Amino acid sequence: MIPKHLQDLVDALRILPSVGEKSAFRMALYLLEQENDAPLRLANALINAKANVMRCEVCNALCEKNICQICNSLDRDNSVICVVERPSDMLAIEKNNRFNGVYHVLGGLISPISGITPDKLSLNLLKKRVEDGEVKEIIIALGFTGEAETTVFYIQKILSGFPLTISKLAQGLSSGLEIIHADKHTLNQAIDDRKIISRSV
Amino acid sequence: MIPKHLQDLVDALRILPSVGEKSAFRMALYLLEQENDAPLRLANALINAKANVMRCEVCNALCEKNICQICNSLDRDNSVICVVERPSDMLAIEKNNRFNGVYHVLGGLISPISGITPDKLSLNLLKKRVEDGEVKEIIIALGFTGEAETTVFYIQKILSGFPLTISKLAQGLSSGLEIIHADKHTLNQAIDDRKIISRSV
Repeated sequence: MIPKHLQDLVDALRILPSVGEKSAFRMALYLLEQENDAPLRLANALINAKANVMRCEVCNALCEKNICQICNSLDRDNSVICVVERPSDMLAIEKNNRFNGVYHVLGGLISPISGITPDKLSLNLLKKRVEDGEVKEIIIALGFTGEAETTVFYIQKILSGFPLTISKLAQGLSSGLEIIHADKHTLNQAIDDRKIISRSV
Repeated sequence: MIPKHLQDLVDALRILPSVGEKSAFRMALYLLEQENDAPLRLANALINAKANVMRCEVCNALCEKNICQICNSLDRDNSVICVVERPSDMLAIEKNNRFNGVYHVLGGLISPISGITPDKLSLNLLKKRVEDGEVKEIIIALGFTGEAETTVFYIQKILSGFPLTISKLAQGLSSGLEIIHADKHTLNQAIDDRKIISRSV
């Protein structure tokens, strides 16, 4: 009943994250109902992205040359590396136009249950950057999940012999959040990590 | 900062229904992180679907030949046409394996505010099918929105001179719905359209 090529399109769309059978079907019909060349534009964008987007050899970020713009830039401070899970985290930080160091994209978090062992991530590449000598600080920007904590612990371990500062993002109340709406863990952490703003002793 | 071809892919994915900037970005990263050829499979599916899926010349359904399987079938009752808004509605009814008539896909509902005037829908094609003489009943299966009601009214108008029965789907309580959870409009309609199950007068 469903035309074969329509069903093929539905199946192909289902590989997208959070897209089930119904959404995929709705997307496929929508695309085919467009009178313009939207489906072909998407097809070309997929082919071009697959062919041209690669991983930076230094930091593992997505880029279109062997080395990404940030790693190539003379204006960035190569002695500070911000370690993130995914390229989207890096872009989120870049958007704020504040951090002037460089990045390192792990490509995931250590999660033995999901089969993500340290060798599946770009951890050796990170260690190699540190070995090269220029790095003074590693800022670990990984969120606060169990898997992130495991990964932080592992990074600390493999970099323990090197003369550098390792930090992780501050944990505490989100901007705009009221105390009564903070979860227990966040509130405890915010109290433990309180910042002294005045001391008259 | 964002590789050009990655941004192009994000932009192309945004044309999908209910996909905003963030979802599109997540989809694009997901596709590029796949080690298999998933992005190319999706690209090919789009190209093939665009090239091969067309509209049935009789009923306006999606198909891969000039005339769809249902319109072409000798087992279907051509005298009963079920009018639906979209191909997905038709597939929903077909799934139940119960209706043995044929379909007519309008391609939308009349909505002057959104610029969807009757000429944008396959209403002339429907009228032509009725003019051809074989049709005895039109079942309008359009849901119960204002736009659907307008469309029902318009269909009644253009088909008023022909000797045929026009019906629309029954309105009432959904299967499994408790009275207290029915909205006011549905409950009123269910009472107005109550079905007599016994009469001893």
